[in-house]
Amino acid sequence: MSVVLTEEARRIITAGRLAHLVTLDPDGSPQVSLVWVGLDGDRIVSGHMGAWRKVQNIRRDPRVSLSIEAEGRNGHGLDHYLVVRGRAEVVEGGAAPLLQRLAHVYLGPDKVFPGVTDPGLGDVEAISAERIGGVGPWAP
Amino acid sequence: MSVVLTEEARRIITAGRLAHLVTLDPDGSPQVSLVWVGLDGDRIVSGHMGAWRKVQNIRRDPRVSLSIEAEGRNGHGLDHYLVVRGRAEVVEGGAAPLLQRLAHVYLGPDKVFPGVTDPGLGDVEAISAERIGGVGPWAP
Repeated sequence: MSVVLTEEARRIITAGRLAHLVTLDPDGSPQVSLVWVGLDGDRIVSGHMGAWRKVQNIRRDPRVSLSIEAEGRNGHGLDHYLVVRGRAEVVEGGAAPLLQRLAHVYLGPDKVFPGVTDPGLGDVEAISAERIGGVGPWAP
Repeated sequence: MSVVLTEEARRIITAGRLAHLVTLDPDGSPQVSLVWVGLDGDRIVSGHMGAWRKVQNIRRDPRVSLSIEAEGRNGHGLDHYLVVRGRAEVVEGGAAPLLQRLAHVYLGPDKVFPGVTDPGLGDVEAISAERIGGVGPWAP
């Protein structure tokens, strides 16, 4: 069952830090790639121009995790971070405008995402959170 | 089959950046936690004082991935990072001296790891790399 992202989680997801996205390979082993992320309503979205392994993995098994480092440390000196477990859906098309929107966050307000801009190309991975964890003031 | 860590990979692993460690839950879904890491010969090591879920997971299924952000960006503005896939082994005892050694890297040269210091307590997770990837000058 999906859960609603807290304001703190939303803040970290949109802070311009890389997300470590884990999908499951055909043999069940974990596959990791670092991606840009943003929000589309209550779902976490990333975009890809090619049929990468992570996209193929999500089509076969939608279970994913992602983790993002955050600002600050707790009293034990441990850095804050967010972990989201959830289910991802591959939405065909729309990667180029999403990547351009995220380029403003990750590269700079005046930056253009390099590559094709046809809005019909690429895929968007939309993740519905099922559990939120990590270390920080927002931790459950 | 395990592979030898490159000098670039060793440099990133010992740079004091958090590692995003993925283990597999009993139902096969990915479990992520952020850990301090170091090297013990050609294995990547982390230490834990409790029987956390990641330790239980590794005992049942040794397949892990870990990813670490690194300095620099490539020509497309993508941040450098390292991904290691491998197999982990739980070594009983020895967590406290390892965590103290890593506290000097992660917290500061004069810092003491908070908590127990009995060298016989806790577990060390030792990871043998089987594949190295990511984005950066070291990428295969």
